[in-house]
Amino acid sequence: MSIAAEMSQLAGRAKTASRKLATLRSGTKNAALLAMAEGIEKAKAHLQSENQKDVAAAEQKGLASAMVDRLRLTDKVIAQMAQGLREVAALPDPVGSVSGMWVRPNGLKVGKMRIPLGVVCIVYESRPNVTVDAAGLCLKAGNSVILRGGSEAIYSNLALAEILQKALSVSQIPSDAIQVVQTTDRQAVLELLKLEQYVDLAIPRGGEGLIRFVAENSRVPVIKHYKGVCHTYVDKDADLEMGVKLAVNGKAQRPGVCNATETLLIHKDVSKDFVPKVGKALREAGVELRVCPVTAKLLGEIPHKAATEDDYYAEFLDLILAVRTVDSFDDAVAHIQKYGSDHTETIVTQNYSTAQRFLETVTSSCVFVNASTRFSDGFELGLGAEIGISTSKIHAYGPMGLEGLTTEKFIVYGDGQARG
Amino acid sequence: MSIAAEMSQLAGRAKTASRKLATLRSGTKNAALLAMAEGIEKAKAHLQSENQKDVAAAEQKGLASAMVDRLRLTDKVIAQMAQGLREVAALPDPVGSVSGMWVRPNGLKVGKMRIPLGVVCIVYESRPNVTVDAAGLCLKAGNSVILRGGSEAIYSNLALAEILQKALSVSQIPSDAIQVVQTTDRQAVLELLKLEQYVDLAIPRGGEGLIRFVAENSRVPVIKHYKGVCHTYVDKDADLEMGVKLAVNGKAQRPGVCNATETLLIHKDVSKDFVPKVGKALREAGVELRVCPVTAKLLGEIPHKAATEDDYYAEFLDLILAVRTVDSFDDAVAHIQKYGSDHTETIVTQNYSTAQRFLETVTSSCVFVNASTRFSDGFELGLGAEIGISTSKIHAYGPMGLEGLTTEKFIVYGDGQARG
Repeated sequence: MSIAAEMSQLAGRAKTASRKLATLRSGTKNAALLAMAEGIEKAKAHLQSENQKDVAAAEQKGLASAMVDRLRLTDKVIAQMAQGLREVAALPDPVGSVSGMWVRPNGLKVGKMRIPLGVVCIVYESRPNVTVDAAGLCLKAGNSVILRGGSEAIYSNLALAEILQKALSVSQIPSDAIQVVQTTDRQAVLELLKLEQYVDLAIPRGGEGLIRFVAENSRVPVIKHYKGVCHTYVDKDADLEMGVKLAVNGKAQRPGVCNATETLLIHKDVSKDFVPKVGKALREAGVELRVCPVTAKLLGEIPHKAATEDDYYAEFLDLILAVRTVDSFDDAVAHIQKYGSDHTETIVTQNYSTAQRFLETVTSSCVFVNASTRFSDGFELGLGAEIGISTSKIHAYGPMGLEGLTTEKFIVYGDGQARG
Repeated sequence: MSIAAEMSQLAGRAKTASRKLATLRSGTKNAALLAMAEGIEKAKAHLQSENQKDVAAAEQKGLASAMVDRLRLTDKVIAQMAQGLREVAALPDPVGSVSGMWVRPNGLKVGKMRIPLGVVCIVYESRPNVTVDAAGLCLKAGNSVILRGGSEAIYSNLALAEILQKALSVSQIPSDAIQVVQTTDRQAVLELLKLEQYVDLAIPRGGEGLIRFVAENSRVPVIKHYKGVCHTYVDKDADLEMGVKLAVNGKAQRPGVCNATETLLIHKDVSKDFVPKVGKALREAGVELRVCPVTAKLLGEIPHKAATEDDYYAEFLDLILAVRTVDSFDDAVAHIQKYGSDHTETIVTQNYSTAQRFLETVTSSCVFVNASTRFSDGFELGLGAEIGISTSKIHAYGPMGLEGLTTEKFIVYGDGQARG
């Protein structure tokens, strides 16, 4: 069978299963999630032996050790996957809720009922835990999921899928609700992304290359973010100690993630006081500073480099920070608009009006006052889970939890109304 | 300048204007909407003389008279456009609202604030009133709009745009907030649909050909519906008189629109009583019947044709109705799933459980009980307006009003929280 035919059949089965899934009660879905957690724990030895095949192949290929580490299903990773499923089971089920109804002059009662999207396709790279996390969230939201992981994790992913599907069958949920694409040919992704009659949403998770590949080749709607160029802006009315704390936390607490601060903006009125303090603290945290000429002068002996234009656009994902002194609040906002990626921005200020203006003016997906950019995360913001982050404004904007995996249909209760 | 460069500049200006628009208060936007209404009324003579150029060209080309009629800016159409703008001014402004905030264990206060999408591109066909309606809704929701109408209406659209832009400038809103594409070259649409850095959403309005062209060529998210194959299902527990009324209203009240009923499904237990009644009423309303063998027998002398498989997939947009007797509720739902287009379905029943099951099981964008499919419309459902209808589940599903032209960003009030 051709890959095109194979993917079409797989997606068609996912669609059929999704009709059944959409009508399941929470209790049934939660029982399956708990069975999945138990299944993973019980099959630990088998999982680890299959995973070892992936790890050995990766080592033979000479993959970087960080990459190989991401592949590994250690005891800890397996325990976390099971725990994650149990947490998803404990979350409230968004499906079926109607937040209110309004009555039309002709007596029609109109409301919006939350329903699953249908079929979600996740395209991701090496971490096999995504297989379990994404499957759990999609199931809870009532969606079928098509999982297409990286070729480096294929043995692990297939072993995980088998366990997940077995748990589904115990709960009498069609096993087509969770499918892992067996072929590692990239053509399979291209075929899946054409099937708009079956697939309702595609979510790519991984590096910018993978995300662009999916976005550029998809006929199906895509939820994505290319990169996170997040800003911390220390205003002229900032508590400077808080500014130091949030700049260091934003950059250095975990520099390799998308919500880490990449550029620090400082109002010129406080630069003189603030730059030496924050420069010292950042250097102590091991951060390389790439700074504008005004900031450079104020740093004096503290080691730094000159920032290039490219540095302001950069997602360093490393212990590197661009720093710029700006003339005004408006200049800070203009910098964010020009160089930012609509991900997350925070202002440090004690001024009420400035804080409100920042919240209203900045149109990024997460806009914070006096909090670290690192809180831009589905768990930290209280969504209970995160399937991905969107920096395009359609459907979901920012961290996306269970609700983002659903939509709303209109429902109407009438008593015979016809249009005049 | 190449078309690509021209469209990129136009869209870039729209993006710049959108940043200003996003911060406008409702009062400013409403004043501009009222000025636009007045401007259109005052410029009636000029509008009609420009419109006459389009009408003359269309007649010379030999366009069908129904098409030429759609082009005409009659006194009535001009009055309706002005009235439409005044109604949009009177609608509540969705921008800036925060429906609630929750507090995290660390004290962070988290909420979601509604904000404009940014830049919306509307691609449409002959009716010049879309220029005004879409511009009004996009402005109210705080978006810049790029309007690309059909070449047959270019003089009318450019004349309207000039009036709308003049009204903007009086309110000190950048005139780039409303732009009509001046070239009628189709290449312009292709270029606009590539500009994901500037354009946040594309909405095609017109025939299936136009919609497929936009959907297949867009890098920008698209909100669309290809067709409306709406069903009226008369259940075994239906009030049969109500069934007749809703079947006739659904099909015949205005057959050429997407929410007209295209297929009538009848439970076999009531077919014997119901088919002759509804058949007679539908024939009196001038409806051609294309029916299944069971229905055919029951119709007897009442004129009808045999339905083909294709008839069940068809959006007739005419006084033609497919009619099928089904064995059960489940068969009715299966028919809707197989042949439907996720637009609008209604059940006629007096049975409480059956009504609830229909509302829960059918996943179309509008699911009604005891009401005509013709109510599937932004105004009728109480949205106050309609920019389009979506039958894909991402972002908006069903009729889309002002809220569909916005999104939500996360806002956080902190007092110095850093991640541990």
